[in-house]
Amino acid sequence: MGALRLPSLALLLSPCKSLRLRPSTLKAAATVSGGAGSRGLSSQSLAKEESSLSPPSADRKPSSSYEGSVTPRSVDFNAWYLDVIASAELADYGPVRGTMVIRPYGYAIWEAIQEYLNVKFKETGHSNMYFPQFIPYSFIEKEASHVEGFSPELALVTIGGGKELEEKLVVRPTSETIVNHMFTQWIHSYRDLPLMINQWANVTRWEMRTKPFVRTLEFLWQEGHTAHATLEEAEKEALQMIDVYKKFAYEQAAIPVIVGRKSRAETFAGAIRTYTIEAMMGDRKALQAGTSHNLGQNFSRAFGTQFTDENGQRQHVWQTSWAVSTRFVGGIIMTHGDDAGLMLPPRIAPIQVIVVPIWKTADEKNGVMNAVSSLKEVLHKAEIRVKIDDTEQRTPGWKFNFWEMKGVPLRIEVGPRDVANKSVVVSRRDIPGKPGKDFGISMEPSVLVTHIKSRLEEIQTSLLQRAISFRDSNIVDVNSYNELKEAIAGGKWARGPWSAGDAEEVKVKEETGATIRCFPFEQPQGQKKCFMTGNPADEVAIFAKSY
Amino acid sequence: MGALRLPSLALLLSPCKSLRLRPSTLKAAATVSGGAGSRGLSSQSLAKEESSLSPPSADRKPSSSYEGSVTPRSVDFNAWYLDVIASAELADYGPVRGTMVIRPYGYAIWEAIQEYLNVKFKETGHSNMYFPQFIPYSFIEKEASHVEGFSPELALVTIGGGKELEEKLVVRPTSETIVNHMFTQWIHSYRDLPLMINQWANVTRWEMRTKPFVRTLEFLWQEGHTAHATLEEAEKEALQMIDVYKKFAYEQAAIPVIVGRKSRAETFAGAIRTYTIEAMMGDRKALQAGTSHNLGQNFSRAFGTQFTDENGQRQHVWQTSWAVSTRFVGGIIMTHGDDAGLMLPPRIAPIQVIVVPIWKTADEKNGVMNAVSSLKEVLHKAEIRVKIDDTEQRTPGWKFNFWEMKGVPLRIEVGPRDVANKSVVVSRRDIPGKPGKDFGISMEPSVLVTHIKSRLEEIQTSLLQRAISFRDSNIVDVNSYNELKEAIAGGKWARGPWSAGDAEEVKVKEETGATIRCFPFEQPQGQKKCFMTGNPADEVAIFAKSY
Repeated sequence: MGALRLPSLALLLSPCKSLRLRPSTLKAAATVSGGAGSRGLSSQSLAKEESSLSPPSADRKPSSSYEGSVTPRSVDFNAWYLDVIASAELADYGPVRGTMVIRPYGYAIWEAIQEYLNVKFKETGHSNMYFPQFIPYSFIEKEASHVEGFSPELALVTIGGGKELEEKLVVRPTSETIVNHMFTQWIHSYRDLPLMINQWANVTRWEMRTKPFVRTLEFLWQEGHTAHATLEEAEKEALQMIDVYKKFAYEQAAIPVIVGRKSRAETFAGAIRTYTIEAMMGDRKALQAGTSHNLGQNFSRAFGTQFTDENGQRQHVWQTSWAVSTRFVGGIIMTHGDDAGLMLPPRIAPIQVIVVPIWKTADEKNGVMNAVSSLKEVLHKAEIRVKIDDTEQRTPGWKFNFWEMKGVPLRIEVGPRDVANKSVVVSRRDIPGKPGKDFGISMEPSVLVTHIKSRLEEIQTSLLQRAISFRDSNIVDVNSYNELKEAIAGGKWARGPWSAGDAEEVKVKEETGATIRCFPFEQPQGQKKCFMTGNPADEVAIFAKSY
Repeated sequence: MGALRLPSLALLLSPCKSLRLRPSTLKAAATVSGGAGSRGLSSQSLAKEESSLSPPSADRKPSSSYEGSVTPRSVDFNAWYLDVIASAELADYGPVRGTMVIRPYGYAIWEAIQEYLNVKFKETGHSNMYFPQFIPYSFIEKEASHVEGFSPELALVTIGGGKELEEKLVVRPTSETIVNHMFTQWIHSYRDLPLMINQWANVTRWEMRTKPFVRTLEFLWQEGHTAHATLEEAEKEALQMIDVYKKFAYEQAAIPVIVGRKSRAETFAGAIRTYTIEAMMGDRKALQAGTSHNLGQNFSRAFGTQFTDENGQRQHVWQTSWAVSTRFVGGIIMTHGDDAGLMLPPRIAPIQVIVVPIWKTADEKNGVMNAVSSLKEVLHKAEIRVKIDDTEQRTPGWKFNFWEMKGVPLRIEVGPRDVANKSVVVSRRDIPGKPGKDFGISMEPSVLVTHIKSRLEEIQTSLLQRAISFRDSNIVDVNSYNELKEAIAGGKWARGPWSAGDAEEVKVKEETGATIRCFPFEQPQGQKKCFMTGNPADEVAIFAKSY
C-alpha cells in the first residue's frame, strides 16, 4: 500500500486536530444546557456518561469517522469545506490523485438530485440510454473548438487486453462526439426528430487542481443530448432545460441561482450559446452549477448528422446538450453549511428527522425505546425520512453534534419525562439553541406529523430566503471599472452594463480574478452604457471570482 | 467517419434483408385476417393504406429502425438474437470494437432491473456509494488469483492530461481491490461491522469475443461489497444475496434459474466460494445470470483490512461481493423471445399495454382518438404502463408487428365499431392468433382495469411456467460419462453425481464443450456415485455448454 495509502481529508488538513478539546465532551455540554439538560439530564451526567461509554483509549479512533469540530467557516472556508466533507462522511479521496470516493451519505444526496431530475427529464420527453465511455481519439478531433477545449484534459487508454491499441481511446470527458456518431445512424427523416435522450454516467477530465465534488478527475453527471429540425426548436429546448435546473436549484436545493447566458469566452467548447445557473457560495465565490448548450449545427456538420426535411432536402440537425453533476453536492454544502457542519434542505436530505432516545436506567430505556419505535413508524408512514440513533456507544450529546454535522433538518429527543408527558422536543438544525426548539409537541400521530411536516416546509423556505438575502446583499451594481475592482476586492459580485470585447474580459480577469459569470436573464430596464468602454450596452453582466 | 462508421447489426448479419418481402405488407395482412381484419378493415385496405402512407422510395430507409422480419429463431439462434436486438431497438454497436450503445428501449429494461434490485439491496441493509473507476495497477497485483484472472482483460490508461503516467491505471474490471483500499480507512473496530455497500457502475473487460448484452468490453452492473466480523456472517450474506437474485429472476424476469455453487475451477478469481444463478436460454445454452462470492479473507489479507474485535484482538475482515449486470437483459431476450421478436414479462416490460387506434375517415378518427385518450388515462391511473401508437405514417398492421417485435405483453385495438360498442379487443403477445384475443372487453374503467391487470398477471405466470417446462424437459439425469456426452451432444443439460477433480472437469470441457454450471442447492436424496470415477459423491453437478 505504502505511498498510495493517503491520509484522510481531515487529518491532512487539520494536523493539530488531536490537540483540540474533544467535541463530544465540549459541545455535548453546551447543547445539553439549552436542551435536554433543562429536561432532567445535566451536562455533568452527560459528560460522565460519555466517559463511561466511550471506548478504551487504545481504540480511541472513533468507530464512526465523526471527528467532531471542524475549522470554523469564517476562519478558513476551504479547510471548513474539507472538514465538513470528512466529518459528515460525504466523501473521501480515492487512491489516484484527484479522484474521490463518494460515501453513502454523500451519495444519498446525489440520489435525491437524480430522483428529481430523472422524473423531470422524462416528463419533458427525454429517454435514458447509455453510450460507451471509450471514444476513438479521431472523434474528438472532428469539431475544432471541441478538441481545443478538451484535449489538454483527456485520459487515454492505450493498452487493451495486453496489447498496444492501434488507435488511442479517449475516456469520455463528455459525449457529444459519440452521440453524433450514433445519431447519424438513427436519424434519417424529419419524422425521427426531435430525438431527445439523456444518460447518467461517469466522465473523466484530467484536472490539475482538484477539490472534492467541485472538480475531480472523474465525476458523475447526467448529460442530455437532443437533435431538432430547426434552430428555434433547439433554442427552446436549451432554455427549457436550464429552467428545469433553475427550478431544481430553487425548489429542492434551496439555492437561489442566477440564470443567464455565458459570454463568448465562457461558452462550452463546441456550442454557439451556453446558458448557466450560477450560485453564490458561502465564501461569495460563484459556482457554475449547471449548463445547457445550444450546439447549433457545429457537431452535426462535423459528423454529418443529417435528415431529410418535409421537402425532401437534406439538412443538418440542430442540437443541444445539458448537464448537472456531482459538483452540485459541493454547491449544497457551500451554500447552507455553517460552523456546526452541513445543513441540508429538507427536500433533498437523506434523513429529515433524527430521533435520539435518552435514558439512564433499564426501566427508562424500555419506555423510551417503545415510544421511539412507534414514533418512527408514524413518521415513516407519513413518508418522512426518519432514523433512530440508538447506538449505545455514544452519548446523546455526541449524537446531537454528529447529526448536526450531518445537517439533518430536525432532531427529536425522547427522554423518560417526554414519555410520561406523551410529548417530545423538536429541534431545528437551522436555528441554534432555544429559539429553534419546540417543546411539548404531542406524540399523537396526527399532531406530530402535521407539526413535523410544517416545520420541514418552514426550514426549506427559510434556507432559501436566507440564501437569497445573502446573495442580494453581496451583489453590487457598478458603473465604472473602479467600482467593479472595489466590489471584487471586497469579495462581492459586480453587476454592470457590458458591451466590451473578449480582450477587455481577459483584462478584468487578469487584474481582478473575476470572470463574467453570465448575462442574467433578468435585466434592468432603461438605457445602459458599458462601464468599461462607455459605449452603449444592451445588457448587464455579472462578474465574480469563481470555483 | 469512414472505417469507424459501422453498419447496423441487422444489416451486418442479414445482408439479403432487402430482398425479403416487406413485413409491413406481408405480416400486416396475416395479423389482420385473424384480428382487426375480421372487425371491418380488410387486409386489402390495410395494404392500400400502407402504400399511401409510406414515405417516398427515396426515403425508403424506415424512420424507426424497425426492419420487420427477423431470422427465425430455429434457423439460426445467434442471428435471431442480433436481429431482435436491432429490430426491437434495444442496442447498437458502439464505434469501438466490442462496445455497445444501449438504446432507450433496452435501457428501460435495465432500469426495471435496477428499480427492483435497488429496493431489495436497501431493504437488506446496503447503502449505495461510488468508487473511482481508475485503479492503480499495483492494486490488481496484490491478490494472487485475482491478478491471474483479470490481467489478460485489462484496459489501461497510460496518458493523462497529455503526459505519460508514472503508474498505469486500470479501468476497473471489478472493484474488490479499491474497495479494500478504502475499507482499511473506514474499518477500525467490530462496531464498524458489518459494512455493507453497493455501487451501480460501468466496468471494462477487454473481451476478445463479444456479443451485445452478453459479453461486451464495457458493461453496466451493480457490485455489492460487504465486510463482516466472521466467516459465518459473510457466508450468510453471500447466500442472502444470491437468493435476492433468484427471487428477481423468478418473480420479475420469469426466468427459472438454477441456484447453486460453482466448482473450484469456475469460482471467481479471489473468492473462496461462488454462488450462481444459471439460466437456460432458448438454444439451451446456459447463461450465468448473477453471482455472489464469499471472498473469505483473501482480499483483507492482501490489503490489510483489519478490525479490533471485542477482545481487543486485530482480525482480518471476512468479505463478500455480488453482481448482476446488463447481461441479464440478454438473458431475458434469449429466454422468452420467439420468431416474432422479443417477449417481455409484464413486470419488467417498459410498456405493458400498447394501444393501436384504427380508423379510415376523419369522423371515425375523432371518436377513436377520444376513446383511446380516456382509455390511456384510465390505465395510467391504475399504474399500468401504457402507450398509444397514434403515428399516422404507419398502418395498424405495421404497428401490430412492430410492438410484437418489441415484446409488449398486451395490445388493445380500438376501431370505430369498438367505440360504438364501448368495448375493445385485447391481444396477448404470448399467445398468437385468436386464442390469445379477448373480444368485447368493456371500456368501463373498473372492468377494463381488472381485465388488464389479471391478464398481465396471467402472462407473467405463463411465461415462467413455459420456461420451467422448457428447462425441465432439457435437463437429463446421467449416470455415466457416455450418458453425459450424449446429453450434451443433444444440446441438453446433464445432471449427475460428481466428485472428480479439476483434471476431469477440464477433460469434460475439452471433449464435450460443457462445463460444470453449478452444484445445485436442490440435491436428490440418497447415496450417489460419481459418474466419472465411480467414487462416492456428495452432490450432483449440472453440466452444460454456456455463453
